[in-house]
Amino acid sequence: MKIGIIGGGSVGQTLGAALIAKRHEVVIGIRKTTPDELAKPRNFAATLAEWQTKTGGKVATMAEAAAFAEVIINATNGEASVAALNLAGAANLNGKVLIDVSNPLDFSKGMPPALLPAFAGHTSLGEQIQAAFPQARVVKAFNTITAAVMLNPGLIPGDHDLFISGNDAAAKATVSELARNFGWQYIVDLGDIIGARANEAILPVWVRLMMTGGPMFNIHVQRG
Amino acid sequence: MKIGIIGGGSVGQTLGAALIAKRHEVVIGIRKTTPDELAKPRNFAATLAEWQTKTGGKVATMAEAAAFAEVIINATNGEASVAALNLAGAANLNGKVLIDVSNPLDFSKGMPPALLPAFAGHTSLGEQIQAAFPQARVVKAFNTITAAVMLNPGLIPGDHDLFISGNDAAAKATVSELARNFGWQYIVDLGDIIGARANEAILPVWVRLMMTGGPMFNIHVQRG
Repeated sequence: MKIGIIGGGSVGQTLGAALIAKRHEVVIGIRKTTPDELAKPRNFAATLAEWQTKTGGKVATMAEAAAFAEVIINATNGEASVAALNLAGAANLNGKVLIDVSNPLDFSKGMPPALLPAFAGHTSLGEQIQAAFPQARVVKAFNTITAAVMLNPGLIPGDHDLFISGNDAAAKATVSELARNFGWQYIVDLGDIIGARANEAILPVWVRLMMTGGPMFNIHVQRG
Repeated sequence: MKIGIIGGGSVGQTLGAALIAKRHEVVIGIRKTTPDELAKPRNFAATLAEWQTKTGGKVATMAEAAAFAEVIINATNGEASVAALNLAGAANLNGKVLIDVSNPLDFSKGMPPALLPAFAGHTSLGEQIQAAFPQARVVKAFNTITAAVMLNPGLIPGDHDLFISGNDAAAKATVSELARNFGWQYIVDLGDIIGARANEAILPVWVRLMMTGGPMFNIHVQRG
């Protein structure tokens, strides 16, 4: 499958490498593709030049990555996601599955971060992306787990869940199939894109659990 | 143990009945103990007159319930909790374990409710209660599960977790011992009372899962 990843940070690089290892074609899209950008140190990740060498994946502009792709992954900083997707171009998103793995976190007061008020409460980043790009088929998913586990659920033993939400049932089925291919057994459908409020509300819980025991965990819903 | 429950709604009544069944002495505290109040229909619960007859428990004023108790449970509506605890009286809370099971939910826009902004983000109801009553030993707990399961975890099969947070280690140990007595095996300590942000952030997730499959569930943290 042709997959465009918007955002070249640790999440985009980790997902890209895992997808390439499963023989998907991956283009990471960033704002500017200058040599300086490719050589720039990134938080918790390699430079994109190193990523290209190591994985054989490509790096292009956000618009090129989105135009190339059948499925697009938003792996940008949540606060900047709508602006980044505008650079990718609404026309390049139309009709395509857009997997939103981002989180709208406010680190302005240090740890733990909170959800940014503009995206919390009776709204969510997932809903705002869907509203900004009504022709895209947005699926909120993978935002509730550390990057290493997103496409490698076997790193956590036992039963644990991938939470997804979105308005388009076929798009959710595409994402679920992709996830199953990486070993996800428990996919919890939180309903339409309003469910992104729940996807994103997991983050304050996630961060606290991370602070008290590290990032290698996930949660499982037990029903009675 | 002498337990005072502030709030006579379905959560207070359910917890009270379960505690009485385990031979604790329970007094439910409400604002006014007039015959009208005891006969008043309550959401998802019996009248308090019926609860008294059925359980043998007592109903008194909030101040009387708090003065009587060794351990106090805040089972009021989150938005009104600090006001209710002021009626219970700071002097009656001082030095005592105060289990905060409440949630600050905003139903003003219907379902799903959001967290009330005044209690969300870089704060929480649990922290605000601790700040308002600095001599009380606040433990946030039991707010992440439906009332029937709070003191009857066996209703949900498999492994699932009770999340607690609070500044006072001995108070958390008291609550954990009480919980284990009701069958709780997995108690996840979210650290100091700032962890109440995580306890309360579970609610938007909980409500969405409730909307898609009913309230009889709980979550479990799997660590890698």
